[in-house]
Amino acid sequence: MTDRLAISIEDIHQAAERLKGHAVRTPLLEFKPLNSAVGRRVLVKFEGAQHTGSFKFRGAYNRLSAIAPEDRAAGVVAWSSGNHAQGVAHAAQLLGMPATIVMPDDAPQIKVNNTLAYGAEIVTYDRYTESREEIATAIAEKRGALIVPSYNDPYIIAGQGTAGLEILDQAEEMDVKVGSVVVCCGGGGLTSGIATAIKSKLPEAMIYAAEPQGFDSTGRSLRSDHAVGNDPDARSICDALQSPLPGEMTLAINRHLDVGGLAVSDDEVRSAVRFSFEKLKLVAEPGGAAALAAALAGKVPDHDGAIALTISGANVDPDVYCQILAG
Amino acid sequence: MTDRLAISIEDIHQAAERLKGHAVRTPLLEFKPLNSAVGRRVLVKFEGAQHTGSFKFRGAYNRLSAIAPEDRAAGVVAWSSGNHAQGVAHAAQLLGMPATIVMPDDAPQIKVNNTLAYGAEIVTYDRYTESREEIATAIAEKRGALIVPSYNDPYIIAGQGTAGLEILDQAEEMDVKVGSVVVCCGGGGLTSGIATAIKSKLPEAMIYAAEPQGFDSTGRSLRSDHAVGNDPDARSICDALQSPLPGEMTLAINRHLDVGGLAVSDDEVRSAVRFSFEKLKLVAEPGGAAALAAALAGKVPDHDGAIALTISGANVDPDVYCQILAG
Repeated sequence: MTDRLAISIEDIHQAAERLKGHAVRTPLLEFKPLNSAVGRRVLVKFEGAQHTGSFKFRGAYNRLSAIAPEDRAAGVVAWSSGNHAQGVAHAAQLLGMPATIVMPDDAPQIKVNNTLAYGAEIVTYDRYTESREEIATAIAEKRGALIVPSYNDPYIIAGQGTAGLEILDQAEEMDVKVGSVVVCCGGGGLTSGIATAIKSKLPEAMIYAAEPQGFDSTGRSLRSDHAVGNDPDARSICDALQSPLPGEMTLAINRHLDVGGLAVSDDEVRSAVRFSFEKLKLVAEPGGAAALAAALAGKVPDHDGAIALTISGANVDPDVYCQILAG
Repeated sequence: MTDRLAISIEDIHQAAERLKGHAVRTPLLEFKPLNSAVGRRVLVKFEGAQHTGSFKFRGAYNRLSAIAPEDRAAGVVAWSSGNHAQGVAHAAQLLGMPATIVMPDDAPQIKVNNTLAYGAEIVTYDRYTESREEIATAIAEKRGALIVPSYNDPYIIAGQGTAGLEILDQAEEMDVKVGSVVVCCGGGGLTSGIATAIKSKLPEAMIYAAEPQGFDSTGRSLRSDHAVGNDPDARSICDALQSPLPGEMTLAINRHLDVGGLAVSDDEVRSAVRFSFEKLKLVAEPGGAAALAAALAGKVPDHDGAIALTISGANVDPDVYCQILAG
């Protein structure tokens, strides 16, 4: 069965080699107030400390560094609401490649500014009426540039999976047995990558994709026998988790590894962002707090062992953040 | 000379043994945007991830756990604007001891609430007209309780010094040579403890106490031949760093180890809190950002090797935090 999946654990080990010395080994942290609130031991993988403020740098650097040096001049094109944008822009900058990013015109300002600061060119589109794929494909064809998907790509999935390898190592260093892992999920790249890593060593562990209600296409697809898209009229505070559909590759992996879906409301996400500020002292963007929200809302099924969860990103505009803190 | 100082490196090693399994080994983190802004490599010791949200738990637990079990029932008394309060309250809670904390009536609400949540009793006083020492001493005498000083105490200094041992180990794990260490400084407990730890292994390293302007009594005392107090009319946004005078013990250690003083303005502190939010994704309270402020303001003298600095606490009310983020 494994040979039909987009990646194996070997791809993640190779990604870890490529990322060595380039990506941050982000901390895995435990907090008493979180353990008390959830009623179980919880370990937090803080990807806000990753370059560009989210896990997305992992997959982007893995993809771009695998491009042959002679093919780099034509550059890369990607579409993203902001975190993949920054990851691709920064990886391209480090590798000396031009990058063009297609971003929705309502992307958070901090993500737009940072993407520009990494030297990328930005092309904007309307999230609700235009097709980012079409715009990006046209640019890529004109320039002979490579499109870097944000999740449905073996290199991207393997790169994100390096966070899972780190969770395994760090939990062992902390002498904690992990029983379930909850991952913030948009298109499923981080979830399927982490699931592949964790299951390679802890086959009994349960993996959950935490998604915003209305954008819980991975969970609904996993409960169905086919890919189910999100309602185009759905809205969420989690700007980073609004993929229209799970990826073919990511969904196949998540299905194979028996990943479960947990849907969280915007209010649960807001509470989690506040909890992270007050008790964990970590900045979390709304989409980056979905897994924490699921844990705090008591939605993670009981299982032996600790919960490990991702705070997957922390790129949030101060005014949005302060509206959330104000309750 | 060393035998006249309050502590030696052995005391810090003993503290580390007492704290093992009780305190958090907080992360030491490196961030590209910080390196770029400072123009040198910078490692951040994030004590916001310590129990109670500041380094103060280290010294408090070291002091209280050294009290003989038969002497614990009478409890402890401390005065503090909030971080030492929480540290003592939580350590007392863990050891089953009653704790009374004398706090200024303008202490941040988050610090008051947390101190209460750890089960301590709070007695308030006016920071500018009443003597917290007198109030606390009267309570301690009545109850036969032990006063736990916030910095001028060998156990407290040694406990805070464990953060310095961790910096040494973690920098070595990261293969980074530390040349200077900048520490947020109120009464000097953390500074003298970290200085003792760092200098034991890196005698060439320079240690700096970062203080708010107007409360830079440690820096001014070190440049003089006697202890110099702060102007009672001084005001600062750094509620945690407003000690009237350096401790005798802490000043003697800091003088012996050639510690330097760096004074930062409230505006520099505000910028540092914002930088920490935007680029490091770490919550820092104003006083906890003093060392970062000194580094960002270019006030750390040139020296071979990386700068290690503390974000020493992260207990800040959301409204104060958001006023700072709004600029």
